[in-house]
Amino acid sequence: MPARLATSLETAAPPPAPDFSEAVVRLRGLLADDLDAVNAEILARMESPVRLIPDIAGHLVNAGGKRIRPMLTLAAARAFDYDGDHHIKLAAAVELIHGATLLHDDVVDGSSLRRGARTANVIWGNKESVLVGDYVFSGAFELMVAAGDLRVLQVLSRASGVIAEGEVLQLTTQKNVETTFDTYIDVVEAKTAALFAGAAHAGAIIAGAKPRAEQALRDYGRYFGVAYQLIDDALDYAGFDGDLGKNVGDDFREGKMTLPVVYAVARARAEEKPFWRRVIAEGRQTDADFEQAVTLMTRDNAIADTAACARQYAERALNELDKAPDGAFTDALANLVTTSLSRIA
Amino acid sequence: MPARLATSLETAAPPPAPDFSEAVVRLRGLLADDLDAVNAEILARMESPVRLIPDIAGHLVNAGGKRIRPMLTLAAARAFDYDGDHHIKLAAAVELIHGATLLHDDVVDGSSLRRGARTANVIWGNKESVLVGDYVFSGAFELMVAAGDLRVLQVLSRASGVIAEGEVLQLTTQKNVETTFDTYIDVVEAKTAALFAGAAHAGAIIAGAKPRAEQALRDYGRYFGVAYQLIDDALDYAGFDGDLGKNVGDDFREGKMTLPVVYAVARARAEEKPFWRRVIAEGRQTDADFEQAVTLMTRDNAIADTAACARQYAERALNELDKAPDGAFTDALANLVTTSLSRIA
Repeated sequence: MPARLATSLETAAPPPAPDFSEAVVRLRGLLADDLDAVNAEILARMESPVRLIPDIAGHLVNAGGKRIRPMLTLAAARAFDYDGDHHIKLAAAVELIHGATLLHDDVVDGSSLRRGARTANVIWGNKESVLVGDYVFSGAFELMVAAGDLRVLQVLSRASGVIAEGEVLQLTTQKNVETTFDTYIDVVEAKTAALFAGAAHAGAIIAGAKPRAEQALRDYGRYFGVAYQLIDDALDYAGFDGDLGKNVGDDFREGKMTLPVVYAVARARAEEKPFWRRVIAEGRQTDADFEQAVTLMTRDNAIADTAACARQYAERALNELDKAPDGAFTDALANLVTTSLSRIA
Repeated sequence: MPARLATSLETAAPPPAPDFSEAVVRLRGLLADDLDAVNAEILARMESPVRLIPDIAGHLVNAGGKRIRPMLTLAAARAFDYDGDHHIKLAAAVELIHGATLLHDDVVDGSSLRRGARTANVIWGNKESVLVGDYVFSGAFELMVAAGDLRVLQVLSRASGVIAEGEVLQLTTQKNVETTFDTYIDVVEAKTAALFAGAAHAGAIIAGAKPRAEQALRDYGRYFGVAYQLIDDALDYAGFDGDLGKNVGDDFREGKMTLPVVYAVARARAEEKPFWRRVIAEGRQTDADFEQAVTLMTRDNAIADTAACARQYAERALNELDKAPDGAFTDALANLVTTSLSRIA
């Protein structure tokens, strides 16, 4: 982190953004033209005479996602002075992979709210979300293929496989109070970090980055992805609905074994174990249980230690950026990471 | 067809197989080593420490599918004397795309029986089938990427998109008694013929076929795919459970607007229209309704004309093969088509 700050000063960049939303807005400003092109590419790819497809895809695209993943691709490419246009297709592909997994996740989790809006499965139905998700996923592959780089195709198709594997693993850990720290980190590495890594890596590859820098971008994405997910997990117990764009306590109600729960269960006193078994393993919850869970987590530092773990991953992400070229885009990538921690500060 | 038969005689090929199962067995014999390699490739790709993945994938792979689609890829490549090994990966990819769509289709349709075995959604659950389907789909893309041919990637990623679009279109026609012949053919072209076409096309491309022959293989696959689906549709009203590997009447009970129903509704007398509205549009059926539907279809030649339509597509498929090289593999591809019609003879 100190190395990053020094770099920022040397290149006379503006001071770091104060919080995550601001960092996202700044990066969006740096990438404004690229992001417009990405949106146009996504909408063009989701055109279809079968009305349900543009309807659901449009809902997904317009639902106010922060576009973190495609920005990683765009910023990574720009950090290496890429001046072609394949990064647009790849960024669009990355966002579509993400969108397809959201459509399927919401069906699998039975979620009704995402980014503050009703989910597609609630508006159109589960069947529709599954099949349109498949279409969106195929569209992502068509875009990658159109970008025409076999190494990028390798990286992103592998990322897709890892994401799906992580989702299945998560399903098997759900309601399982024995889930360990290591297993949970495996889930996060797969379901979140793999696409962050693939997104940044794809940008570096398409820009012709040298192996060491290319791998640094991949690892930056990976570590940032883990940090980002852990912060999200902590916010489910410590945040506000508005902040999160979903309902606080959603993970709890679904019996998800996220890191705060893993810590809380491991540190629970003998007489508290039945509480966790009932609310997580058996899924029998009353209205007061969420508050009780937060109380126990606070006493045992489960949320604070989740945040501390996120901080460690964030530091690793920043260290990787020391191997990337100096400049405004690298600074913006660093700023995303440092400010993401402020969400639970 | 006469041209095909003449070719068979000139090259001293064995006489055409008497029926479809026999034609499949013969082609399987010609491709035995290749098919073993395809199976090994599929199983390797579906390995995962997340047990549910090899469990569900193994169930899918071992459930006795006929392997028509991968055989199209293999036979098309061999017809052009291909002697590399990329056709193995591509054939495996084609079978995995098919497998992924089956997993998702069975969730969407709520099916409980496929190829005479219980479906994955019944054994493991809907969530599991959706997520493992995504994993299988990603695996298909990884295999295609490993084959390393961008044109094949274009063809097969487009096919995947078209399949998903067709599935969504089919969902919107379900229970809609106004569905026309043209719309229904659009559904079949997308959900079935696109992968048959892509499978044969991919084999021809990887083997370096000239443009005219390459496109002939694509169109052969396309026309055969439509014929194959129409025969399947007819069998749902005229077949036996054992033949079909699923339950006779399944399409009817799900309110699917297949071609026999499209014809039957169009030809129904005024006083019979409420019957079709009730059983298809409203989905209110009694045990006697399926028999009544078959009676009306028989009177109005709805099943016979579906078979006739299949025959027309089969002839087009055979005509395309006149542009392919003479030889045992081309003969076997022709034989698949001619004998497929025998299923409803």
